[in-house]
Amino acid sequence: MSATDPEKPVPEAADLPLREEAATFRPVAPGMEGHVNRYHQVLDHGFIAVKDYMGDDLSILQMARMSYGKGTKGLNDDRALLRYLMRHFHTSPFEGCVIKLHVKLPIFVMRQWVRHRTASLNEYSARYSIMPDEFYMPRPDQLAMQSKDNKQGRGDTLSAEQSAEVLAILKDEALRNFATYHHLLNADENGQPLDEGREGIARELARIGLPLSTYTQMYWQTNLHNLMHFLRLRADPHAQYEIRIFAEKILEIMADWVPVTTEAFRDYQLEATRLSRMDLALVKDMLAGKAKLEDAAAYGLTKRETRELADRLGL
Amino acid sequence: MSATDPEKPVPEAADLPLREEAATFRPVAPGMEGHVNRYHQVLDHGFIAVKDYMGDDLSILQMARMSYGKGTKGLNDDRALLRYLMRHFHTSPFEGCVIKLHVKLPIFVMRQWVRHRTASLNEYSARYSIMPDEFYMPRPDQLAMQSKDNKQGRGDTLSAEQSAEVLAILKDEALRNFATYHHLLNADENGQPLDEGREGIARELARIGLPLSTYTQMYWQTNLHNLMHFLRLRADPHAQYEIRIFAEKILEIMADWVPVTTEAFRDYQLEATRLSRMDLALVKDMLAGKAKLEDAAAYGLTKRETRELADRLGL
Amino acid sequence: MSATDPEKPVPEAADLPLREEAATFRPVAPGMEGHVNRYHQVLDHGFIAVKDYMGDDLSILQMARMSYGKGTKGLNDDRALLRYLMRHFHTSPFEGCVIKLHVKLPIFVMRQWVRHRTASLNEYSARYSIMPDEFYMPRPDQLAMQSKDNKQGRGDTLSAEQSAEVLAILKDEALRNFATYHHLLNADENGQPLDEGREGIARELARIGLPLSTYTQMYWQTNLHNLMHFLRLRADPHAQYEIRIFAEKILEIMADWVPVTTEAFRDYQLEATRLSRMDLALVKDMLAGKAKLEDAAAYGLTKRETRELADRLGL
Amino acid sequence: MSATDPEKPVPEAADLPLREEAATFRPVAPGMEGHVNRYHQVLDHGFIAVKDYMGDDLSILQMARMSYGKGTKGLNDDRALLRYLMRHFHTSPFEGCVIKLHVKLPIFVMRQWVRHRTASLNEYSARYSIMPDEFYMPRPDQLAMQSKDNKQGRGDTLSAEQSAEVLAILKDEALRNFATYHHLLNADENGQPLDEGREGIARELARIGLPLSTYTQMYWQTNLHNLMHFLRLRADPHAQYEIRIFAEKILEIMADWVPVTTEAFRDYQLEATRLSRMDLALVKDMLAGKAKLEDAAAYGLTKRETRELADRLGL
Repeated sequence: MSATDPEKPVPEAADLPLREEAATFRPVAPGMEGHVNRYHQVLDHGFIAVKDYMGDDLSILQMARMSYGKGTKGLNDDRALLRYLMRHFHTSPFEGCVIKLHVKLPIFVMRQWVRHRTASLNEYSARYSIMPDEFYMPRPDQLAMQSKDNKQGRGDTLSAEQSAEVLAILKDEALRNFATYHHLLNADENGQPLDEGREGIARELARIGLPLSTYTQMYWQTNLHNLMHFLRLRADPHAQYEIRIFAEKILEIMADWVPVTTEAFRDYQLEATRLSRMDLALVKDMLAGKAKLEDAAAYGLTKRETRELADRLGL
Repeated sequence: MSATDPEKPVPEAADLPLREEAATFRPVAPGMEGHVNRYHQVLDHGFIAVKDYMGDDLSILQMARMSYGKGTKGLNDDRALLRYLMRHFHTSPFEGCVIKLHVKLPIFVMRQWVRHRTASLNEYSARYSIMPDEFYMPRPDQLAMQSKDNKQGRGDTLSAEQSAEVLAILKDEALRNFATYHHLLNADENGQPLDEGREGIARELARIGLPLSTYTQMYWQTNLHNLMHFLRLRADPHAQYEIRIFAEKILEIMADWVPVTTEAFRDYQLEATRLSRMDLALVKDMLAGKAKLEDAAAYGLTKRETRELADRLGL
Repeated sequence: MSATDPEKPVPEAADLPLREEAATFRPVAPGMEGHVNRYHQVLDHGFIAVKDYMGDDLSILQMARMSYGKGTKGLNDDRALLRYLMRHFHTSPFEGCVIKLHVKLPIFVMRQWVRHRTASLNEYSARYSIMPDEFYMPRPDQLAMQSKDNKQGRGDTLSAEQSAEVLAILKDEALRNFATYHHLLNADENGQPLDEGREGIARELARIGLPLSTYTQMYWQTNLHNLMHFLRLRADPHAQYEIRIFAEKILEIMADWVPVTTEAFRDYQLEATRLSRMDLALVKDMLAGKAKLEDAAAYGLTKRETRELADRLGL
Repeated sequence: MSATDPEKPVPEAADLPLREEAATFRPVAPGMEGHVNRYHQVLDHGFIAVKDYMGDDLSILQMARMSYGKGTKGLNDDRALLRYLMRHFHTSPFEGCVIKLHVKLPIFVMRQWVRHRTASLNEYSARYSIMPDEFYMPRPDQLAMQSKDNKQGRGDTLSAEQSAEVLAILKDEALRNFATYHHLLNADENGQPLDEGREGIARELARIGLPLSTYTQMYWQTNLHNLMHFLRLRADPHAQYEIRIFAEKILEIMADWVPVTTEAFRDYQLEATRLSRMDLALVKDMLAGKAKLEDAAAYGLTKRETRELADRLGL
C-alpha cells in the first residue's frame, strides 16, 4: 500500500520546509509531479519518496535527435524512436533523465544497494547522530528456509509456530542490542543522558554492536540508464525480497514518470531473453524441424542450460 | 555579448517545440529559469544554452543535512553550512544538482571537453548527417605567436597584417575542405545532389578531410561537483582561450543558478591557493621572522616553485 | 598483417627503454607476454601495442570465488564457473583484469573511441608538440558509396577510377593542410624554423586547420569488463570500418590473454542474440506449432523486427 | 606488526594455489614484489594483502610523456617531472598504476570504504555462505568517550575499569548474536547441522541480526589516482581510527611500490595546505607587515577559519 502517510513524516534530519508549487520552463512530467515529496511505505519501517527529477520521455528523444541530426527525417514517430533506442541499447539519451529519491532501508539492504556505483548518495551518519531505534522484522510470510537448490535463495515458508519463534528471537536480540547501544552512549534516542553522572562512549564506537537489520536513510540519485540497470538486477526474482520490494516500487514510479520508456524497457529488457550462440543454433534447427530439445548436448548446451532454455521456451 | 539571439535559432536537429511554462513541485532556482532555452553566443558560430537543470542551493543543504542528521543542531545558518561543505571538500551534496547544456563548439574544443568523463553527452553524428558549413575563425586579437616560456600557450599577438594573412589562409583552406566534402558527398548542405548523375561516397568517409575547426554540437549534462572540476581546469588562465570562453559563460550561468555555492566556490577553490609542505614551512618561518624568500632552496623549493610562491604571495 | 615491425618503432615521444624480462610473483598470462611491447600495424599509419596488463583467467575466478565463499563447493570446474559468470552477467570479477594499450589512430576514430568513458587515457597533445605529417588514406577497397538503407553505413565500393579520383583529392587536400600547418607554425616536423626571420603562430591555433584524418596517439587503459563492452560495440559489423579493425585486433589479443573468457564472451555475448518479449512469445508458439512467422504482427512485432528475427533464426 | 602470518592464512574461500615466481616483460616494481601475497594483520582479526599490481614510477612518466610528446625536451629529470605532475594535479598518468588488495575488515568499516565508488570490488556474500564467527573488539586504548567539540570524533580514553565493562558488554552481545545466527541457520561455522531434525532459515535472513562489528572480506582494486584520493580522506586524522589504520598500512605499501610518487604525494598533497581567497589576502598583508592575525575578521575569515589558519601557520 502506498500513500502520503501522515504517520511516516519526513524525518527530522531532512526537515526542510516542503516546496510549494512553482512555475518552471523546464520539462515537466505530469505523472511524476504527483510523486514529488510523497512517501511510500516499504517494509515495516522503510519508505521511498521522490525528492526531485529531471527530464521525461520527450527529453530522451531530444537527446537522441541531437545524434541523428538531419538524418532522422524518417523517424517521425516518437514512440517508435524511443523503442528503437531501447532495442539497440543506445544508452546515452536515457542518461539525460535523473531521479533523486529519499529512501529509508535496513543496513543489509543498503549494503546491496551501494554496489551500484554510478549514483550519488548521502547517507545518515552514525558518527554524527544517534541511530533511531528501528530495525527490520520480516513478515511471517517472508520467513523461509534456506533453498536446497538455490545457493543464495529462500525455500519453503516456515510454519506459523516456527515463524513466531524466529521473530521472537530476532526481536529480542535487536531490542537488547539497541538497549546496549543507548547504555554505551549514555543517551536516549533524543540524545538526553540516561545517567547524568557518567560519560557515554563515542557514537562511532557505540554503533558497532547494532544489528544489520537497523534502519538507515539516504538520498540516492541516479540517471535513468543506471536506474534501469539497477532494476534489471534488483527487480529480478533472484534478488533478495527486501531489496526487490524497493525496486518494484521504483518501477511503478518510473511508469508514471516515463511511460513510453517503461513499456519499452519491459518489452526489450525486463521480459526479453537472451539466446547464447548454442541456444540459437539449436532453436534454428528446431524451427527447421532438424533437431529436438533432446539434441541440446550435441549443440554444446549443459544440462542446466538445456533446462533453462526449455523453461524459457515453454517446452 | 549574450542574448536570446534570433539569428542563432535552435538548429533544426533539435527542433522540438520549446516548452511552455508549467507548474512543478520540484525545487526551482529563480535565477536559472531565465536561462532555460536562452541561447548565448560564444565564439563566431558557437553557442551555449541551458536545456534543463535540477536542484538549487537549498537542495545541496538538504543532501548535506541527511548525512549530519540530528547532529547539525548548531548549523542553523544555511550560508555557513554551504561554505563549510565547500571548504572541506564534502563533494557528494553538490552531486545532487545537475545541469544539461546545449553547446555548439569547434571540434578541437570538443576534443578537450570530452576529457571530462563523468558527464553524459550526445553529439551530432557525421555518420548520420551532413555537417553544416561552419568553421571557427579566431578574432584577430586572439591570433598569437607561440609563447616562448609556456610550452602550451600563446605569446604576443600578431600584427594586423600578419593576422589578416593567417586568417585568409585558414579561411581559404577551410572553404576548400568543405567544397571537397560536398563534392565527395555529391550533396549540398541540405542533402540535395550536386550532380544527379553520380553517387556520393559514404558520409563517414567524406568527413575525414574536414578541419578540426569545424563546428559540432552536443547536449552535455553533468552534476555540479563535476561541473566545478571542469571549471577549475577550463576557466583557468592556462586553459586554451577557445574553451575558456565557454567555461566563463558557464560560470556566469552558475552564479545565477546557485549563487551561494558560486561565491563559496570562488572563495575556497577558484581563488584559493595551495601551499606545499615546503611552501608552508617557509611561510611559517617568514611569518615568525626566521626566514626570507631567499632561503627557499633550503626549504626544498625549486626555483620555479619559489617564483610561483613569490607571485602568489605578492613578494 | 601483424608483426613486430622494425619500420614502425615506438615513437620518440614514448621512447623510454623497453623493459627487460624480470621475475614477478604476480599472475602471468603466458599468451599475453608475447604481446608486451609488440607493435601491430593497423590501417596505413596506425598501430596497437600492449604496454602492460594485469590478471588472467585464473584471477577472474579468484575474484569470483571471494563472493561465493564457502558456498561454491560444487563449482570445481574453473571453465564452468567462468562460463557461468559470463552467462549471468556477473561483471565485477572481470574488472580485476586490466590492459594498457599504446594506440596510433586517426582523430576521427579517436573521437569515437573516447565515447567509452570508463577508461584512462593520455593523448599526444598538439598544444605542446608539433603533429607529425601523417594522415589516413583509405584503401581503395574500403572506399564506398553512402548506403541507401543504412543511414550511417557504407554501400557499394567505388570503381577503380572513382577511387583513384577520391584518393587523389583527399591526399592533395591533406598535404596542403599540413603544408599550411607548417607555414603557420614556421616550423618543420622537427620544430626547426622554415624562415629564420619570422615567428610562428601558437601550436594550439595552427592545428585547427588539420584534417580529421590526422593521426594521433594515446595510451589507453581499461578493465576487461569495460573492454568487452567496447568490443561488443566496436567489433560489431555496424561499427565504422576504421575503428572495427582496431577492435578486431584487440579481440585477437584478448584471446591470447584470457582464452577461456574469450570463448565464453563469444558464446554468450558476441554471438548470442536477444529475443524481445514479443519475439519470445512468437517463437514459443512457433515451436509449439501454434504460429508462423507471418503472424508476427499479431504478436506486436514491427515489420523491421520481423525481418530481423527471420534473419537471426534463419527463416 | 606486519608479517606473513601463518596463523592468518588466506581463507578457504580464496584458496587458489599461490603463484610461483615467473618471468614477465611488464614493468616490475621491485619494492612491491615483496608485498605480493604477504598478509599484514590490521585490527584484531583483519588483514590486508597485495594480490596484484600494475605499473611503477617509470610507467607514470611514460604515460605523461605521451601527452607532452616532443614538447618535453627540457624535462629530462624523471623525479622533477613526477613532482610536477603531482603539484599540478595532472591526474591521468597516475591512473596507469593499479593495485588489487585482499582485505578483511569489520562491516562498519566496509560501509565507509565502499563510499569510494571508482574501484572494483568483490565481497564475501552472506547469501551464499555462512559468516565466520569473527567480530571486532576495540583495544582498550581505542575506547574513547564522545568528543565534546568534534561532532563525529572521539574524546578522552576510558578508564581501565570502564573499558573492561564496555568490552565485556560488546563481546557478550556479539557472542549471543552469533549463537542466534547459528541457531537460526541450524548450522555451525562449517555448515554442519546443529540439529538433524530441523531445517534452518535462509542465510540471507539469518544474517540480519549479526552486528556491524562482524568481519567480512573483499578483493578491492583501484588505480593510483583514486587510491591517493582514498588516502587523503582515510589516512587523515579526522577519519575513524578503524579505517585509518588500514589506510596507513596502504600508505606504507605505496611507499614501497612507487617511492618517488609517494614522496611527492606527501609534499604536495598530504602535508600541503590550502589557503582560501581570504586566508591568502591576510597572509599577503601579514608578510608585507600590513596586517596581523587579529585583523582576520576584516578579511572575511570566520572565527573557526581564523583559528585553523593560526594552527596551520604556527601563529
